Amino acid sequence: MMKPMNESMLIDFYEFTMANGYFESSYKDHIVYFDLYFRKIPNQGGYAIMAGLESVVEYVKNLRFTDEDIAYLESRGIFSDEFLNFLSDFKFSGDLYAVEEGTVIFANEPIITVRGNVVEAQLLETFLLLAVNHQSLIATKASRIKHAAGKRTVIEMGARRAHGVSSANLGARAAYIGGADKTSNTLSDRLYNIPAAGTMAHSWVQMFENEEEAFRQYAELYPASSVFLIDTYDTLRSGVPNAIKVIKEVLIPKGVDFYAVRIDSGDLAYLARETRRMLDEAGLEKCKIVASNQLDEYLIRALIDQGAPIDVFGVGERLITSKSDPVLGGVYKLTAIEKNGTITPKIKLSDNPEKITTPHFKKLYRIYDKKTGHAHADLITVHDETIDESEPLTIFDPTHTWKTQTFTDYHVKELLVPIFKAGKLVYDLPDIETIRKRSLHELSTMWPEVKRFDYPHKYYVDLSEKLWTVKQDLIKKHRQHTP
Amino acid sequence: MMKPMNESMLIDFYEFTMANGYFESSYKDHIVYFDLYFRKIPNQGGYAIMAGLESVVEYVKNLRFTDEDIAYLESRGIFSDEFLNFLSDFKFSGDLYAVEEGTVIFANEPIITVRGNVVEAQLLETFLLLAVNHQSLIATKASRIKHAAGKRTVIEMGARRAHGVSSANLGARAAYIGGADKTSNTLSDRLYNIPAAGTMAHSWVQMFENEEEAFRQYAELYPASSVFLIDTYDTLRSGVPNAIKVIKEVLIPKGVDFYAVRIDSGDLAYLARETRRMLDEAGLEKCKIVASNQLDEYLIRALIDQGAPIDVFGVGERLITSKSDPVLGGVYKLTAIEKNGTITPKIKLSDNPEKITTPHFKKLYRIYDKKTGHAHADLITVHDETIDESEPLTIFDPTHTWKTQTFTDYHVKELLVPIFKAGKLVYDLPDIETIRKRSLHELSTMWPEVKRFDYPHKYYVDLSEKLWTVKQDLIKKHRQHTP
Repeated sequence: MMKPMNESMLIDFYEFTMANGYFESSYKDHIVYFDLYFRKIPNQGGYAIMAGLESVVEYVKNLRFTDEDIAYLESRGIFSDEFLNFLSDFKFSGDLYAVEEGTVIFANEPIITVRGNVVEAQLLETFLLLAVNHQSLIATKASRIKHAAGKRTVIEMGARRAHGVSSANLGARAAYIGGADKTSNTLSDRLYNIPAAGTMAHSWVQMFENEEEAFRQYAELYPASSVFLIDTYDTLRSGVPNAIKVIKEVLIPKGVDFYAVRIDSGDLAYLARETRRMLDEAGLEKCKIVASNQLDEYLIRALIDQGAPIDVFGVGERLITSKSDPVLGGVYKLTAIEKNGTITPKIKLSDNPEKITTPHFKKLYRIYDKKTGHAHADLITVHDETIDESEPLTIFDPTHTWKTQTFTDYHVKELLVPIFKAGKLVYDLPDIETIRKRSLHELSTMWPEVKRFDYPHKYYVDLSEKLWTVKQDLIKKHRQHTP
Repeated sequence: MMKPMNESMLIDFYEFTMANGYFESSYKDHIVYFDLYFRKIPNQGGYAIMAGLESVVEYVKNLRFTDEDIAYLESRGIFSDEFLNFLSDFKFSGDLYAVEEGTVIFANEPIITVRGNVVEAQLLETFLLLAVNHQSLIATKASRIKHAAGKRTVIEMGARRAHGVSSANLGARAAYIGGADKTSNTLSDRLYNIPAAGTMAHSWVQMFENEEEAFRQYAELYPASSVFLIDTYDTLRSGVPNAIKVIKEVLIPKGVDFYAVRIDSGDLAYLARETRRMLDEAGLEKCKIVASNQLDEYLIRALIDQGAPIDVFGVGERLITSKSDPVLGGVYKLTAIEKNGTITPKIKLSDNPEKITTPHFKKLYRIYDKKTGHAHADLITVHDETIDESEPLTIFDPTHTWKTQTFTDYHVKELLVPIFKAGKLVYDLPDIETIRKRSLHELSTMWPEVKRFDYPHKYYVDLSEKLWTVKQDLIKKHRQHTP
């Protein structure tokens, strides 16, 4: 029942061919810098939520190649013996900086920076991207859904539509980071302490002679957690009356004061309103209404706009797959090479201006208003720049450079924190509640205009003058060399 | 580096509350039947490809609960000791029938049927859905992409955008079943023998003094598998000329006769055409062109329509996530209860006609034209019905019953095959090449009208008269009982 798997080999094959190539060339011992970042926020949203760092730490810490892995690579007939020997003793020996899980993040800023020899830095690419792209995608989607739901409860229940086991488990974890309150998936509770909950499916109702009997049996068995699924036969003519009967005859006599009904099909706004009316007329004002069926932030917003009296939203496939936009397109790009202590910034050009990389080993600062605590903007600098908070700080738009902003009463926070130094884990992984609290708190520092779904305000992510100049100089240099 | 994980607990929490409920009730030893099926084909397509059965077999075979799992459930304080004892000795003891991997499947037909005691049948729900929904989704998407690409090669390269480790690994496997030719993901090759391939990223080109040097080093090292990535600086002014130079100066003198260039950005139709022209003018007619960058079946079709001379398509995020429609909405529904050998069919109603379930323990037949081998239709029958191929066979539309079709020169194939009988695995899992061949062959038996992307012909999935009557009778019965 235990499935041992060496995830180390979840590496695109070209990482191995390149790594072997570097190993065979004079570049083998060069130190390089890679940045992981994304260019576009999913769903044309205004922000994203960082997640996946715990998976990255586990991967990097445990990255080894077994004899079977080496034998497989050897069988491909293109790798040198020296390289295979090197892999069999492999251990990550570099530095890794990352933005902490639960932090609000934006496009075009480094959320992970790797410094290491070219071989090890290259080998990390596939897994780092996979972990951060997937988990940040789901945390972001969950954050949007929780934002739409406001104070109402959100339950993640998408396991059955997830893209495999890790999509279900780590998806539930990411959803919790983003603000979901519970999950349906028991394994996520076992592995990551995400509170798991659940009551009955249609099959339960079908098993019994009739719906009332199904509700009655459930209420007798689980008086403290009865949520009656009322749409198996007819929501308003059968489901609600049977639920009312069982609540009054079984639960109230037991002194229970939590009970609920769940609607899983039909017009949720209409059915919720009618159900509320019938429950209230029966004196069951306390009875909660749970709604589910292909919900996401847009449908939840529409239901709330229509005044649907729903207390709990069960959100499945559209959260666990981020259905409206299932890709966070993070990339991992070489930004600098270090030789004898000298760092040479590197660039990748493109006819597409937004695909031009920002070179160099960097720092990432978030600038907060000292009075209100609101986040003003992020500033990316060269690694050796510092910010003196007692001096005014002027930032400028990297494209329209005449657009400037000056802050006086501000403080800054460095967002990239050391995770590994010389191969050693130097970061204490926080527990899931700390990460979730961070995400909810960090989001509260963002202006509402950044959080809205339609045409959100573009949060500023600017470059320091020094970094901007490095980038412009490299663009000019390469343009001159192209025939 | 080995990550042991008991996937058994990937079970929605409500399966446990229901299972415990059945266990505590008089229903504990009832035998039940569940069907797994989906209601809608993703992307409004005409067909889907079955995948995920191997994962289902592994799961069912190994389904156990560890002491830690039991302790966790006990800590929830709602499960009876008898039930927990039962779980600690759990082993699936029922029957499972399934459509084989690689088979073409359609909406509203059972692709898995489970017969077992109500507790075990309920516990399988989450994982069976997860495995079949995910892997069939990706196999179907890959099949569409391969259909668009025709004889051209398709390489799956989405690991970095996959939704976690299993999405990458089993996604690559599913893509191969659907018709992809290779994968970028080394671990899929290790685990499932999906041929892995790959050459260089932009970082390789950036590492060297200049692009020509980067190509030259690669060609010296991997003469037999050189694919030069030509868009790091300027595709036509720098990438193509440097590739031509290195092919002529390094590869041709070595007698190599496979070489290629890859374009990963810009207008692929224009760049491929210009690249082809430049290569041909240089006498390199043999040089292949690989294209990648957010491709899917629609973009590939458009590129081919424009006459883009592309030989190989690298397909990433839009395949591994089935981006255009990332959900296959399979469901798992109770269809019958068996008591003392008598099977009582069960139904779930809905105001939404397509959400009404088809009751009973069933068989699924595919009807083929004997002469052409083409598939005419699928027919779902009650489990005890047989078809006499020497007699004409008339089928009718379950909604518009006056629409009938009669076949004379036909043969039928039963699609649901026994996988487990009384808990014992009775099925030999085929190797991946057999499954892939089945998928390609089965698709060739479908009319082109079923395979097209726009408004595909709706393939008939009809009910036998006996099954249709059972369903209508149950609908009437329940309607009469609703006040």
